[in-house]
Amino acid sequence: MTTSPEREFVSAHIDDLHADLDAWLRIPSISADPAHAADVAASAEWLAEALRRTGFPTVEIWPTPGAPAVYAEWPSADPDAPVALVYGHHDVQPVDPPELWVHPPFEPTRVDGPDGPELHGRGASDDKGVLIVHLLGLRAHLAATGRGTPAVTVKVLVEGEEESGSPHFAALLRERRDRLDCDVVVVSDTGMAAPDVPSAVTAMRGLADAEITLRGPAVDLHSGSFGGAVPNPLHALAELIATLHDDQGRVTLPGFYDAVRPLSDRERDLMGRVPFDEQAWLAGPAASRTTYGEAGYSTLERTGARPTAEVNGMWGGYTGPGHKTIIPAEAHAKITFRLVSDQRPEQIGAMVQAWVDENLPEGIVAEVHTPPGGVAPCASDLDSPAMEALLRAIGQAFDTAPEDVLLTREGGSGPEADLAEGLGAPLVFLGIGLPTDRIHSPNERVLLRMLERGAEAAAHLWRELATLRRG
Amino acid sequence: MTTSPEREFVSAHIDDLHADLDAWLRIPSISADPAHAADVAASAEWLAEALRRTGFPTVEIWPTPGAPAVYAEWPSADPDAPVALVYGHHDVQPVDPPELWVHPPFEPTRVDGPDGPELHGRGASDDKGVLIVHLLGLRAHLAATGRGTPAVTVKVLVEGEEESGSPHFAALLRERRDRLDCDVVVVSDTGMAAPDVPSAVTAMRGLADAEITLRGPAVDLHSGSFGGAVPNPLHALAELIATLHDDQGRVTLPGFYDAVRPLSDRERDLMGRVPFDEQAWLAGPAASRTTYGEAGYSTLERTGARPTAEVNGMWGGYTGPGHKTIIPAEAHAKITFRLVSDQRPEQIGAMVQAWVDENLPEGIVAEVHTPPGGVAPCASDLDSPAMEALLRAIGQAFDTAPEDVLLTREGGSGPEADLAEGLGAPLVFLGIGLPTDRIHSPNERVLLRMLERGAEAAAHLWRELATLRRG
Repeated sequence: MTTSPEREFVSAHIDDLHADLDAWLRIPSISADPAHAADVAASAEWLAEALRRTGFPTVEIWPTPGAPAVYAEWPSADPDAPVALVYGHHDVQPVDPPELWVHPPFEPTRVDGPDGPELHGRGASDDKGVLIVHLLGLRAHLAATGRGTPAVTVKVLVEGEEESGSPHFAALLRERRDRLDCDVVVVSDTGMAAPDVPSAVTAMRGLADAEITLRGPAVDLHSGSFGGAVPNPLHALAELIATLHDDQGRVTLPGFYDAVRPLSDRERDLMGRVPFDEQAWLAGPAASRTTYGEAGYSTLERTGARPTAEVNGMWGGYTGPGHKTIIPAEAHAKITFRLVSDQRPEQIGAMVQAWVDENLPEGIVAEVHTPPGGVAPCASDLDSPAMEALLRAIGQAFDTAPEDVLLTREGGSGPEADLAEGLGAPLVFLGIGLPTDRIHSPNERVLLRMLERGAEAAAHLWRELATLRRG
Repeated sequence: MTTSPEREFVSAHIDDLHADLDAWLRIPSISADPAHAADVAASAEWLAEALRRTGFPTVEIWPTPGAPAVYAEWPSADPDAPVALVYGHHDVQPVDPPELWVHPPFEPTRVDGPDGPELHGRGASDDKGVLIVHLLGLRAHLAATGRGTPAVTVKVLVEGEEESGSPHFAALLRERRDRLDCDVVVVSDTGMAAPDVPSAVTAMRGLADAEITLRGPAVDLHSGSFGGAVPNPLHALAELIATLHDDQGRVTLPGFYDAVRPLSDRERDLMGRVPFDEQAWLAGPAASRTTYGEAGYSTLERTGARPTAEVNGMWGGYTGPGHKTIIPAEAHAKITFRLVSDQRPEQIGAMVQAWVDENLPEGIVAEVHTPPGGVAPCASDLDSPAMEALLRAIGQAFDTAPEDVLLTREGGSGPEADLAEGLGAPLVFLGIGLPTDRIHSPNERVLLRMLERGAEAAAHLWRELATLRRG
């Protein structure tokens, strides 16, 4: 345990962080529910005021066609200092089902848990708790340096629609491109592997979706009069979906793996170092009887580093009580694909169409709808100076050597790829959420000691990033 | 063209039949819609009054827990005369979608069609038009014989819930068993092959249904965090349903065909004589691009004489707009089976369970629900005296030799098996509906010349059945 001015400041002022988070969590900023639009706006105002209070000389509310974003900027006094942009979001998930919450979701409650004190509330981890460490972190950085401005220029962009799919975020990045210029993006919307396991996310998967409609007879037919004599779209859909994976659990779309770079020995070694109790995972969050998936890969590789195809919904014909003896005219499936390395969402539609064409039974026609958009995969460059700075900052906060900070991958998809592509800057991920934080679920929580470690890591990060020089 | 007293009477009084049908069709006796309960009751009253007017000395309304049935009885003066029971129904299908009707469904309208005058209206064919021929037919029979009572004892049982699945019919048969004793059941709820093709249905298929629920994770999972690493019930359902038929189109349930008697050469020859334009069928009622089905059988054999399995509905996961990236906890399918020869509906559940057990992927559990009930298949005995009497009656009405009356099979299922099993009497089918009558669809119609031929055939039938002597 080596202390530091940053750690001492964080420790001395941790009550400020707790008070701020308590106040922010009381604002029910549910972006998916139009009834909470005023709350989302109030959440933006609260954050703007907190950033001003922290010392940011420039703080702005940026309206969008949806919920407002918050932007702040604090220039370094050093004209050669790099520019870092912090990304997060101030909106939260809905609370359904409310009856499963032990404490009211918008009345933050401290609870003593097996890993120490926790704070319960919607947004405690995702993303208010994860993001808020930067307020105290930046104050600790300034206290440690004794200067009035940060060692790097710090920009902050906190959107208000992440839990609604960030529908206006890419456009906002384009419109405000000149203000957002930066050398590195610090994403603070992810987590670590476990409470005492300092780690950093290094990649997020991309996302593409497709909806397939199969058509058979022009109208629903009586299955007594026509059954067994004409193609049934539900049978055809089942047979089609049954071909989506081969017997090795690989996705059968033609060319699907062409842009997937094989995992290097180093990457597999790094993933293998992450502690993972598969039985606890099955019994806990996965709530499943068995694992299943692509042959030759571990569960962490399957969820973090390999592309997947999942049918998210499937329907057709009669679904009410009792029976209705029809051959339906149509059958439908919704499929999403998670993408890695060099896969591009805009290439998936043609692959889906080719796969459907190859596997469609006679007499059935298919309509494949692949909406524009999607999310590209994104990743940190493991060998970049920014990554090294991040690992030094996390290592110091957790009393761990930088090379012992573990590297994980996030299976989900978010607007981070938009940031990397829209701003042309590398990404690093600093987040102190945990897989056990129950984000998006009832009784969301954050561990208080992760908040404290996160604030210290954030404080160290500005010093470490200052070693990157512009140009 | 040989005339007969029956034909002359039917021809002279055909306006009575048209007037009766017009009046009956104006009563919207939709049994599936509780709002029409009073109309169903009014329909029963109308029929009871029409039967009294025809001369039946005993006419009764039989209440059920649902819609009422109508019962009538007219004993023959000959104590050795056989007893025939006519079966039909006085309820009709709903009219949805009403905007597709050219003429209001309950304002019967005469239309000149390519096959001559038609009467349009809900129930014009199914079953009011098909059944009503017996009123004029019985009057013609009495006029031809010059006697005051029919040559056979005629009983009539007309239920009011056939279009709702006859939920109380089997119980009614049990309760009224002593009143319904008979030597032959004359089913009048079917049709002929084509307008100028005298024919008789000789079999109806049975019905069994099953609902399958597959369960994977205990809750819906985030497909980014868990996709590709745990079993997805929708994938499992697709893979399961894909095994329901083999590559020869045969149903794969273990033992499914054990009780299916092979079609004899004679049966196949009789079915092959029925005129059937497959391309017209595809372009018309089947509204399908291709035929499909069990290898080695014709379309008419597949729909009439072979057992089938059809998925009628399938659902699971997210089915709304856009996407929701989940692995759902459950997936569902509804399947109905059509049964022939010696298959029994109560045996199908165990076969479904065995098939599911054989094909279920690891990590998925299945719940198979097979509701009690179902419908047994039923058939006429082609070599019975009652069948010969029926063919003579139809032949004379259509100026055709009895051996040239074609034999068809009805792919659907109804309460006819209950009649055969409940009353222990053989079935014959006298019905003048047509495949082109659009029953259950908008613009249902009946051909006026089929009504006239049907009334004459009904008149001849009592004389011909009188040649059967009781035991």
